[in-house]
Amino acid sequence: MDPRSAVLTTVALWEGGDAVRLVDVPLPALGPGEVLVRVLLATVCGSDRHTVSGRRTSPSPSVLGHEAVGEVVEVGPGGAVGDDGGALAAGDRVVWGVTVACGECDRCRAGRTAKCRSVRKVGHEAFDSAWPLSGTYARHLVLPAGATIARVPVTVSDTLAAPAGCATATVMATVEAAGPLAGRRVLVSGAGMLGVAAVVAARDAGAATVVVTDPDPARRDVAARFGASATPGTDEPVGTVDVAIELSGASQAVARCLDALDVGGRLVLAGSVAPAPAVALDPERVVRGWLTVTGVHNYEPRHLRAALGLLDRTRDAVPWDELVTPAAPLADVGALLTGPAGTAPRAAVVP
Amino acid sequence: MDPRSAVLTTVALWEGGDAVRLVDVPLPALGPGEVLVRVLLATVCGSDRHTVSGRRTSPSPSVLGHEAVGEVVEVGPGGAVGDDGGALAAGDRVVWGVTVACGECDRCRAGRTAKCRSVRKVGHEAFDSAWPLSGTYARHLVLPAGATIARVPVTVSDTLAAPAGCATATVMATVEAAGPLAGRRVLVSGAGMLGVAAVVAARDAGAATVVVTDPDPARRDVAARFGASATPGTDEPVGTVDVAIELSGASQAVARCLDALDVGGRLVLAGSVAPAPAVALDPERVVRGWLTVTGVHNYEPRHLRAALGLLDRTRDAVPWDELVTPAAPLADVGALLTGPAGTAPRAAVVP
Repeated sequence: MDPRSAVLTTVALWEGGDAVRLVDVPLPALGPGEVLVRVLLATVCGSDRHTVSGRRTSPSPSVLGHEAVGEVVEVGPGGAVGDDGGALAAGDRVVWGVTVACGECDRCRAGRTAKCRSVRKVGHEAFDSAWPLSGTYARHLVLPAGATIARVPVTVSDTLAAPAGCATATVMATVEAAGPLAGRRVLVSGAGMLGVAAVVAARDAGAATVVVTDPDPARRDVAARFGASATPGTDEPVGTVDVAIELSGASQAVARCLDALDVGGRLVLAGSVAPAPAVALDPERVVRGWLTVTGVHNYEPRHLRAALGLLDRTRDAVPWDELVTPAAPLADVGALLTGPAGTAPRAAVVP
Repeated sequence: MDPRSAVLTTVALWEGGDAVRLVDVPLPALGPGEVLVRVLLATVCGSDRHTVSGRRTSPSPSVLGHEAVGEVVEVGPGGAVGDDGGALAAGDRVVWGVTVACGECDRCRAGRTAKCRSVRKVGHEAFDSAWPLSGTYARHLVLPAGATIARVPVTVSDTLAAPAGCATATVMATVEAAGPLAGRRVLVSGAGMLGVAAVVAARDAGAATVVVTDPDPARRDVAARFGASATPGTDEPVGTVDVAIELSGASQAVARCLDALDVGGRLVLAGSVAPAPAVALDPERVVRGWLTVTGVHNYEPRHLRAALGLLDRTRDAVPWDELVTPAAPLADVGALLTGPAGTAPRAAVVP
């Protein structure tokens, strides 16, 4: 028996429905290229709430959680490298990509590693699989060989870094899909964590105006503090825009974004990750307007690095800390997971 | 009175509905940068048939027709240049862009000259406007200053060149919007003149397979002769593709294209230029599939040059001549315009 099996860690084991309990489990021996990480701060992504509420399926029992910042404890045989090509070592403060790709299938070769044919995901693997410690609602997790791991600049605090690997990186992929934003009129639909980050990213990319819509006046106020140029309510006009970024997932919001596009306009959908009513697309308007509608799901390794860059550039100008609550203990994860998805600020956990 | 007013030309004047009559009119004195062109061969674009049938509005009376090849007769004061920057001279055999842009408005500056705020179009201007001789169903037309005019290689015959400025150039814009096609699985929806040209363009760009759908078996046969790898009927499966190019404008065909897209797939709509039922867009599928839907209407000057390049490269390999009927006299234009849109081969007129 491996002597390491005597060393225990604690995980919040999700057993289906809203059942979550703390369990002590042995730390595994690391395989080649694997990295053992101690979680410093985890944030609660809305998709975990969707999982617990049943809107989204995920294997159970499992350790949920994928948004976090951690510290490298140990690197497996042969070592592992960060996304900058440098060797990782114990003590490195890191964030990581949600998806772990094979790197060899047709989709990986086409540059869509997030859609790898044998993709595995942090916080989405069964506890009885080959990757039991996949989630961040735990004192430790294991990152497999091939995971995207990025060292965090010392100037970026844990509170800013924790959402980088999901919310912020997804926003960077979304903004990339929106094309050049310099001088453009941008609409951001949905003012949760992603929407607010999209406002900052669009401003950072030189957008002329960033209009933000959200049914919740409190969230619109947050967006205004993060740089929105206007925050019309649901019944107020949003005007005409060159780019719309839809993060709420509501079909009527998708339709509203489509209606707002000027000639040559581009709508990026990223919020529609659960079943929703179809949206009526007028093909003649798409053609005559040279409109584009494009979807983004998860992100590629470069977007994790881009997220850290955005956070670092804007850390003094933007009140990012407001988006995350004071950290709760790991024992509270079950309660935090039964809250509604999309609330701001984002709940945080220190295991 | 200008001595030129004594020189007459003949136009097929469309007076609304299906009323077309031949009229002799004086050739105008040319303004700066204008070019007088004698029409060598005009082809009948389906959109003119839509105009005559009332599906599409256009000012009347007017001279319709925009797809043609001609010979420069005279250049106005100050001269005019071709799209290659060289001065145009009497005797040059040329084709031209459908849209004439101001070059100064926001859309022109954004590279969307086809959507110029004050766009004028060949074959779409009122006969009592400042540009009466705008159409190609005539012995002569005038191209205004700022028109895109391309000299035709001697190796490209009139039959091949006539559709270049509308059908073929639009296909080149559509294929550009589809992104790189090398090694891709392509679906072309609609096997009229544009669909068949899209097959050739996709093959020329290195597509791995080009599946063509069309309700008409005869048109599917043409597509097969032009390089389609499969031509399934309406009730047969089309398989999964990376790129779909929709040229028919039928909403059910748009939906079928959407359904055929693989992860990362791209649907280019170019056929939907008339009102049609909305298509149901599933936002979750767009997001999870990283799908893109984009519209193309008309084209930019570079696509006219690209069209001539395609025709020249493929002139020996592809039976382009089959797509155009033997030329009818100008007096037959009225009868040709009342035929159904989208029939192949394309009717041709020698004025």
